[in-house]
Amino acid sequence: MDDKKDEVYGDHISHKFNDELMELKAEFLTMGGMVESQVENAIQALVDGDGHLAEQIRLNDKKVDRLEVSLDEEATLIIARRQPTARDLRLVISVIKMVADLERIGDEAKKIAKVAMTLAEEGHAPRGYVEVRHIGVHVQTMLHDALDAFARLDSTQALRIMKEDKRVDEEYQAAARALLTFMMEDTRNISRCMSVMWVLRALERVGDHACNIAENVIFMVEGEDVRHTSVEEAERVVTG
Amino acid sequence: MDDKKDEVYGDHISHKFNDELMELKAEFLTMGGMVESQVENAIQALVDGDGHLAEQIRLNDKKVDRLEVSLDEEATLIIARRQPTARDLRLVISVIKMVADLERIGDEAKKIAKVAMTLAEEGHAPRGYVEVRHIGVHVQTMLHDALDAFARLDSTQALRIMKEDKRVDEEYQAAARALLTFMMEDTRNISRCMSVMWVLRALERVGDHACNIAENVIFMVEGEDVRHTSVEEAERVVTG
Repeated sequence: MDDKKDEVYGDHISHKFNDELMELKAEFLTMGGMVESQVENAIQALVDGDGHLAEQIRLNDKKVDRLEVSLDEEATLIIARRQPTARDLRLVISVIKMVADLERIGDEAKKIAKVAMTLAEEGHAPRGYVEVRHIGVHVQTMLHDALDAFARLDSTQALRIMKEDKRVDEEYQAAARALLTFMMEDTRNISRCMSVMWVLRALERVGDHACNIAENVIFMVEGEDVRHTSVEEAERVVTG
Repeated sequence: MDDKKDEVYGDHISHKFNDELMELKAEFLTMGGMVESQVENAIQALVDGDGHLAEQIRLNDKKVDRLEVSLDEEATLIIARRQPTARDLRLVISVIKMVADLERIGDEAKKIAKVAMTLAEEGHAPRGYVEVRHIGVHVQTMLHDALDAFARLDSTQALRIMKEDKRVDEEYQAAARALLTFMMEDTRNISRCMSVMWVLRALERVGDHACNIAENVIFMVEGEDVRHTSVEEAERVVTG
């Protein structure tokens, strides 16, 4: 860009480009907030046996799906029009990947809502609610922190979430084992315990997806792919 | 491009670009073939109670993970260097998305292998193998056909896979219900039946991911996003 006109023009383009990236980030966080509510409400519907709330979650999932499609479109348009490279390209591609994680968290919330509807009719399961609440709070915090780490591009916080995922897995294993033991001792309620088992699994998956988002934040910020690496290796990447 | 030199140069670039796209497709199909084997072997290990084969699957999963990372890198490099648009860009972005599906299918195979190892020690579960085989064959076919549809960019075949997914879901629901009923009648083997339940769920997820790949093929070929649409709507997109 040699003359003034080009400079102004180039500046204008790059402003618009930045606006588009900001807009993409903002919409991703909107979708994230929506999915957070879905998980929270699904757990609430289950614990309260609230079939009405569960139905609401199923309806809201369509909004989540629509956001997935529109965010993907927007990200693809940015690549086609702005031809981002380096850090900007990593951001856009990470958004495309993380949007899929958010959509799947939404699906898990929908599965929990489905169980909530069944149990709202059949009556509470005799066990497992304490564990559902406990793991529920844990993965909700992970998801919230992952979205926050993305908003602030904070790879140190993202690393903390990767560490939490291991704990959630352990909590899930312990809860599933305890529920299975209960099923073997009190065989009258196998069907309803099984329903709670699916909820525990769904929550564990929410934790996995929050962890995926955290890994993408580290990739965006540090430029290194820490999926399938040990937490120690990820720590080395983040702390340099 | 006005003079001959530029034309030749442009031609050269576009040849290299095409080679890179072909290479990306070929590597994706390599990863697909590997994941197909993992699913096949996992089912075999479970049915045969073959702990050695199950262990092999766990080791091979690391190769699948490495392919995921390298394919993602390659796709990102193509976008940064070649700045593809329209159909080429759809191809590259779809590969990024489908690679995540392949990796998750690999994870499901690993989960099945884990169950196979447990049951190889504890002894066969009393029920569910017929269903595992049946649904296993079904989702393996879906996966194979989805990869084939991608290789030939055949949206009609991709549409057929979307239709199959509904049938797999029904088969899975029926099998899970039957197994649950058995668990309630014969409560001595709840733990081992539960293991088979996880396998059925894992296979159902393999079908979901094959369906995701099929939806991406339709997106690549037709330029329309058919996720979250009815099969009828997808049919309208494909048959025009």
